[in-house]
Amino acid sequence: MKTSAQENPEAAFDLVLSSALLPEGGVADIGIRDGRIETLSADAARAERALDCSGLLALPSLVNAHTHSAMTLFRGWGDDLPLQRWLEERIWPAEARMTADDVRVGTAFACVEMIRTGTLFFNEMYWHPDAVVDAAVESGLRAVVCGVLIDMFDPERAARQKDDSLRLMERIASIPGGRVRFALGPHSPYTVSEETLAWCAEFSRKYDLPVHIHLSETAQEVERTHREHGMSPVRYLDRLGLLSDRLYAAHCVWLEDGDIELLAERGVKVLHIPASNMKLAVGGTLRLRELKEAGVTVLLGTDGCASNNNLDMFEEMKIAALTQKASFKNPQEVSAAEIWEMATSAACEAFGLPCGRIEPGYAADLILVDAEDILLTPRHDLVANLVYSANGYCVRGAVCDGRVLMWDGRIEGMEEIRAELVRRAERLCSS
Amino acid sequence: MKTSAQENPEAAFDLVLSSALLPEGGVADIGIRDGRIETLSADAARAERALDCSGLLALPSLVNAHTHSAMTLFRGWGDDLPLQRWLEERIWPAEARMTADDVRVGTAFACVEMIRTGTLFFNEMYWHPDAVVDAAVESGLRAVVCGVLIDMFDPERAARQKDDSLRLMERIASIPGGRVRFALGPHSPYTVSEETLAWCAEFSRKYDLPVHIHLSETAQEVERTHREHGMSPVRYLDRLGLLSDRLYAAHCVWLEDGDIELLAERGVKVLHIPASNMKLAVGGTLRLRELKEAGVTVLLGTDGCASNNNLDMFEEMKIAALTQKASFKNPQEVSAAEIWEMATSAACEAFGLPCGRIEPGYAADLILVDAEDILLTPRHDLVANLVYSANGYCVRGAVCDGRVLMWDGRIEGMEEIRAELVRRAERLCSS
Repeated sequence: MKTSAQENPEAAFDLVLSSALLPEGGVADIGIRDGRIETLSADAARAERALDCSGLLALPSLVNAHTHSAMTLFRGWGDDLPLQRWLEERIWPAEARMTADDVRVGTAFACVEMIRTGTLFFNEMYWHPDAVVDAAVESGLRAVVCGVLIDMFDPERAARQKDDSLRLMERIASIPGGRVRFALGPHSPYTVSEETLAWCAEFSRKYDLPVHIHLSETAQEVERTHREHGMSPVRYLDRLGLLSDRLYAAHCVWLEDGDIELLAERGVKVLHIPASNMKLAVGGTLRLRELKEAGVTVLLGTDGCASNNNLDMFEEMKIAALTQKASFKNPQEVSAAEIWEMATSAACEAFGLPCGRIEPGYAADLILVDAEDILLTPRHDLVANLVYSANGYCVRGAVCDGRVLMWDGRIEGMEEIRAELVRRAERLCSS
Repeated sequence: MKTSAQENPEAAFDLVLSSALLPEGGVADIGIRDGRIETLSADAARAERALDCSGLLALPSLVNAHTHSAMTLFRGWGDDLPLQRWLEERIWPAEARMTADDVRVGTAFACVEMIRTGTLFFNEMYWHPDAVVDAAVESGLRAVVCGVLIDMFDPERAARQKDDSLRLMERIASIPGGRVRFALGPHSPYTVSEETLAWCAEFSRKYDLPVHIHLSETAQEVERTHREHGMSPVRYLDRLGLLSDRLYAAHCVWLEDGDIELLAERGVKVLHIPASNMKLAVGGTLRLRELKEAGVTVLLGTDGCASNNNLDMFEEMKIAALTQKASFKNPQEVSAAEIWEMATSAACEAFGLPCGRIEPGYAADLILVDAEDILLTPRHDLVANLVYSANGYCVRGAVCDGRVLMWDGRIEGMEEIRAELVRRAERLCSS
């Protein structure tokens, strides 16, 4: 079946996924060319490569709206410790030993885990972003990688980090394919100086760049911003010009009256990270219903494996839904369909991704799930099954930008990446 | 390799699991005979059957302390509805159509799901318990099956249900092997008459029988018991003589001052069902730390698939830990090791099961997990990986009472059970 396009002028498609089941019913022969879905009734005989997808459901891939990928190296390293001890005794010493190469391998392994569990785009923030970019490009996934700015109020450090960010921006712009994109990454209102935050606002406006930040994650952060600036972190960022539809703000579990309206008015995207918030016991709960009713787009992310401890967006969807229902004492607080949309189509729209639907014209980013999986049986409601019952290992195949990244649960090169990760994790985490 | 014991007088073992990895390090050749672990250094050549477990971790199987198995039929049927509409429009009409055969198939499919996800014992409460027993025996799992008593204060119904329970008790006593055991199953303090509850207390004492009940699940239940009996549901059951070390009480999320001390004093086992509590928004949170400090044994369960929506105890362990940390705003509230113990060794002890450890003398109930699974990598802390990162599909093999129920993810007969479940679920849930 596999012949090159040059040899076979008849090859109308790069890839055909034959006899795939569609969630709304019916069977499709998904014809893919140049990374796009061209038709749902392709002729497999006219494809360079065809895969028999009988019994497999074709679904849009999941979006991980906030993660620190390379922290796969620290999975299970210091769980259940108080936050400060965890940071001081475990995470910071290990991070201090970390090289760019460690980050490359940690991110590569995170990409393996994301592919395995059906996530094909991630919004990333971590040290050594060049190494993150290398791993993301190599993996075949889509990503937004930010230049991290965490100047700790030191102008010299700020200048160096701005330079690094600009270099990263230029480098990413030169990578063909457009799967990896650049963002500015000011870490948080309490680790970045006013000057640097204002610079981000200005630079983001001038060059139409996304900005990725942690915001209103803990009560301490809110107290401190009030003490130092006389207002909430949300208002403080607005004063500096950062609130806009280019801002992606992670956490937002300690919002004050008026914050929600302001986030809505400015078009800020809120990234909800429930498992990490719970595990680190940050205390607040996202006011999801209020945010949605105000018109704020809310997306879902896992955080890094140091605080979650996996990158499985199926698990995150369930935890998000259960937490809303429990916190607001209402079984209707958020529905499976709303959660599914937050993790797929709404997220693609919010990140300006060309995917999110299995329809002609959309990018060929999709996952294949065994329709007869135990956890999807019976099928009274597929979306409820996906959100409340499935886990990431129900995913059997993954195609991103038209390229097959996993088939029958197997991902090329994963054993080598795994072995290297184990070696590096051992070295970094010798306490 | 496979020869019968009669033909091969050299066969010292029914089964040897060769080269299995032990969690604390080291490699074992687990020799099993008559359902028991005899040695960790068996000679595979002297086994009737030997399985190569290289690269697989041998772990104790998980215990599901509270479920309604046949509700696999209703997975995803009416999610996100208000409780009363969900019951009145979905669950009750479907249950009214349900035959004993539906329950048999629903339970059989639940057993498939539990084997697949590493649970080899379940504490069960559902209609048509004879059919539940049939499915449990056939599956090869261990279970406690209760005779449900839900008289709705109707003496005639109570008499009939008592008779049914006694018949079930006799029938279970006659089943060889002892894997399935009987309990009394008064549904709850608000659906069973005082007379029937008192009868359960007396009968349980006289014949040393376990009692399985729902207790203090909702604020309404507590209010009602105060209104009708002038005390909390816990005190009410104590007045009727039900609180003892034979009582297994599910939920207990609305406990009052003094309830915890009383539960501890009487030796009641509390069954914690966090995902279901959250999804149905029952409002309370289990006071786990207080219960444990008072000396109460707390175990974990999933509830049925109508309210969870799966039977994956790995997921339940994570949700339990996260919820405790979040609710009590402390990352140290419960540790991965405590949760793992609640779902394995402590649960086996509390149910009087002969298993829970991979050691000579214990029953051969164990699961085999790929040591190189993505979600278990790196291995800074295996138990943290199991509780916070793994899911049930990390399990590759399962042995219960010395019998291989799953190998390489495959379970005998599961396709037939699945197909029959789908047919029955469609018929029951035509709305």
